Amino acid sequence: MAEPTARDVGEFGLIAAVTARLPQSAAVLLGPGDDAAVVSFPDGRVVATTDVLVEGVHFRRDWSTAYDVGRKAAAANLADVAAMGGTATALLVGLASPGDLPLQWALDLADGLRDEAALVGAVIVGGDTVKADQIVISVTALGSLAGPFVLRSGARAGQQVVLAGQVGRSAAGLRLLIEGTLVGPLVDAHRRPTPPYDLGPALAAAGATAMCDVSDGLVQDLGHLAAASGVGIDLVSALLLEEGLDPDDVLMGGEDHALVATLTGPAPEGCRVIGRVVAGEGVRLDGQRVVGGWEHHR
Amino acid sequence: MAEPTARDVGEFGLIAAVTARLPQSAAVLLGPGDDAAVVSFPDGRVVATTDVLVEGVHFRRDWSTAYDVGRKAAAANLADVAAMGGTATALLVGLASPGDLPLQWALDLADGLRDEAALVGAVIVGGDTVKADQIVISVTALGSLAGPFVLRSGARAGQQVVLAGQVGRSAAGLRLLIEGTLVGPLVDAHRRPTPPYDLGPALAAAGATAMCDVSDGLVQDLGHLAAASGVGIDLVSALLLEEGLDPDDVLMGGEDHALVATLTGPAPEGCRVIGRVVAGEGVRLDGQRVVGGWEHHR
Repeated sequence: MAEPTARDVGEFGLIAAVTARLPQSAAVLLGPGDDAAVVSFPDGRVVATTDVLVEGVHFRRDWSTAYDVGRKAAAANLADVAAMGGTATALLVGLASPGDLPLQWALDLADGLRDEAALVGAVIVGGDTVKADQIVISVTALGSLAGPFVLRSGARAGQQVVLAGQVGRSAAGLRLLIEGTLVGPLVDAHRRPTPPYDLGPALAAAGATAMCDVSDGLVQDLGHLAAASGVGIDLVSALLLEEGLDPDDVLMGGEDHALVATLTGPAPEGCRVIGRVVAGEGVRLDGQRVVGGWEHHR
Repeated sequence: MAEPTARDVGEFGLIAAVTARLPQSAAVLLGPGDDAAVVSFPDGRVVATTDVLVEGVHFRRDWSTAYDVGRKAAAANLADVAAMGGTATALLVGLASPGDLPLQWALDLADGLRDEAALVGAVIVGGDTVKADQIVISVTALGSLAGPFVLRSGARAGQQVVLAGQVGRSAAGLRLLIEGTLVGPLVDAHRRPTPPYDLGPALAAAGATAMCDVSDGLVQDLGHLAAASGVGIDLVSALLLEEGLDPDDVLMGGEDHALVATLTGPAPEGCRVIGRVVAGEGVRLDGQRVVGGWEHHR
């Protein structure tokens, strides 16, 4: 017998099968199944962000399992919440897919989203599923704050630039996949990034003056932070580059979802200093201006 | 000179051009441009819902303007918030589109989303834009509550069934479009539904025991409400059907985003009684069981 598809079980069958796999949490006043979910944010402030992943652009079904795609789709959003100094509470997921999508693929995707969310105590509270020619996964994360949120625009000359998590591994893994290498730690890093979620709130508590998620490449994302803050960034290759990683991957590679922040005082454990905020503009490595990174539609 | 496309301006150019058109509101502590938005919900409860619209499934570019698609995409979500008894505060929008999408199409889409959201005082606080083969628009609405939220599961035998807004007009308009009629009030109702947003909170305040949005067809959505409540619904054709509308469109047609609710006391002005909650199960019209409506992947 053929594997059941989305078409075989229909929209409501698919939603019921997915929903049955999803735990809820004390913050969820109403979970999936009604017109909308209701979630508690006792502080009265909600951090909200959306990321969209497209088959053939952000993932390939022959390179990544549905479970890994789910982990990665959740990670991109949870990291954005962490980059504000917040912690995600709830996810909403829109899945557009062809009717011949195997039901098991959708269930594995849900499991991946669920398990990545569980790393920060978040749960999936709602979503939508529709027909499309190509798989498009839209994830919205809602999070809470324990203190002030951290913008990109607060960096000031003289402050340290610190990195939480790793950069360059996802890009290196993608190149290996393109070359035909399907196993190994770098390939795994591309399939399933491991953002340092806890270090977002920790950096906020340590007085980070600016912070962002590295999703489009360190140079590009730091460039946005520098522009928003009206400063320059001097990176030091001896502090940043790692043996075994191509400098281009470290500087330009996206999708690792590391966090980069600026601050005056000591950084929390797990972060490392990679440079300094200076007067001026743009990003420099050992004094040389660097530009580049990933941009959609280019 | 050719019209500029998404590819011409790039992801960041597109985001900047869209963001420049978007007002913010007092509830928005941080709008678009950082890793995430921050929105104030003083009550500490957030109503959250996601809907996805796909080109060729939910809309056609030769039948609807981008502005109308934006109105409709926002309406589907704002109505879901209203169906809980809430009022939307903020939208997040994911846009997946081909690189040759005219920039003006994306701007008109944003204007439509913005103007529909403005009807309830909501604003667009964030989003994402990525490459895809087909246009996929994912909208998440976040809303606040002034009192208890209204589930689908609270209907009890003996209560009235009331309708806020109109049903059947979008389906009638869609049939006219398929037949080649491109102008007229029913066609407009398909392109741009007009949900009765204010009546959601009004029905909640009037003691509605169950409520839902009519997005997949009155019979199907009432069927879900009946099943969740463990009751039957008796509709009366003399109260429900309208001259000039096909009974099938009224009963089965989706996408009008009317609200249907059950309650004991008098309904707010603007609602009309269309039937009664009874013991049993399923939906009947003048005593005859009716089933049907729109389901994706079927």
